[in-house]
Amino acid sequence: MSAKKQHNGSADEVEAAFYDAISRGDLDSLMALWAEDEEIVCVHPNSSRLIGHAEIRASWETIFENGSVHIHIRQLHALHNLLTAVHNVIEEFHQKDAIDQDVHIIATNIYVKTPRGWRIAAHHASVASGQAPLDSFKASVLH
Amino acid sequence: MSAKKQHNGSADEVEAAFYDAISRGDLDSLMALWAEDEEIVCVHPNSSRLIGHAEIRASWETIFENGSVHIHIRQLHALHNLLTAVHNVIEEFHQKDAIDQDVHIIATNIYVKTPRGWRIAAHHASVASGQAPLDSFKASVLH
Repeated sequence: MSAKKQHNGSADEVEAAFYDAISRGDLDSLMALWAEDEEIVCVHPNSSRLIGHAEIRASWETIFENGSVHIHIRQLHALHNLLTAVHNVIEEFHQKDAIDQDVHIIATNIYVKTPRGWRIAAHHASVASGQAPLDSFKASVLH
Repeated sequence: MSAKKQHNGSADEVEAAFYDAISRGDLDSLMALWAEDEEIVCVHPNSSRLIGHAEIRASWETIFENGSVHIHIRQLHALHNLLTAVHNVIEEFHQKDAIDQDVHIIATNIYVKTPRGWRIAAHHASVASGQAPLDSFKASVLH
């Protein structure tokens, strides 16, 4: 995905670029996807929340020191209006050290439309007990 | 908080009404605060995500069968635009069976402006290790 697309694309494109940057361990590309706002929020599974660019950047830097992380997202549920898109996804990890199969990761990703295009406002990922329940793709527009 | 305020108030008022309804175990008031959209999302700590009114209502009904839940929220971080408010809070529980003090609960609450006022689009609560870090109140407006 080109830099142009990252900066002008849809929320879906920003989400694809987000997980792509994680898979490549590309810290600069990852951080460029976030809104220019010091109230941006990132919650990693089981971890305290992080507020603002410096804290969030440092956390991903630490994660990438342990190698890249390949996350496949599925079961997108989306709500959106003209200025915001709320995506809830199941994150599947593909790592050498596979995570416990008795849990799954749920993420809420929030994208906002800014003068520079759609950007990430919040990423909240957490651990849920059991395997992810099956369901089908749905999306809707809030009136 | 009156029904009128619940239906026409700000995101802050809907958030107050949400935790108030939980503290009273008032299922109908609680569910009336959600957007009329089948893509609304609720994630309880450690649990699988719930999509739509029926699943979300059933989950709270089960929770209330075990008694009311008093949650005090603090450390609000908010991002908002004209149509959406994203609140991240620390949830403190006051129950007879106090939760483990070595963890804390982080919640992302997303409110959207609908023709009937501000409503809840998503509630994602999760467990984080350790005590909640201290920080001060901040809020900002996304441009």
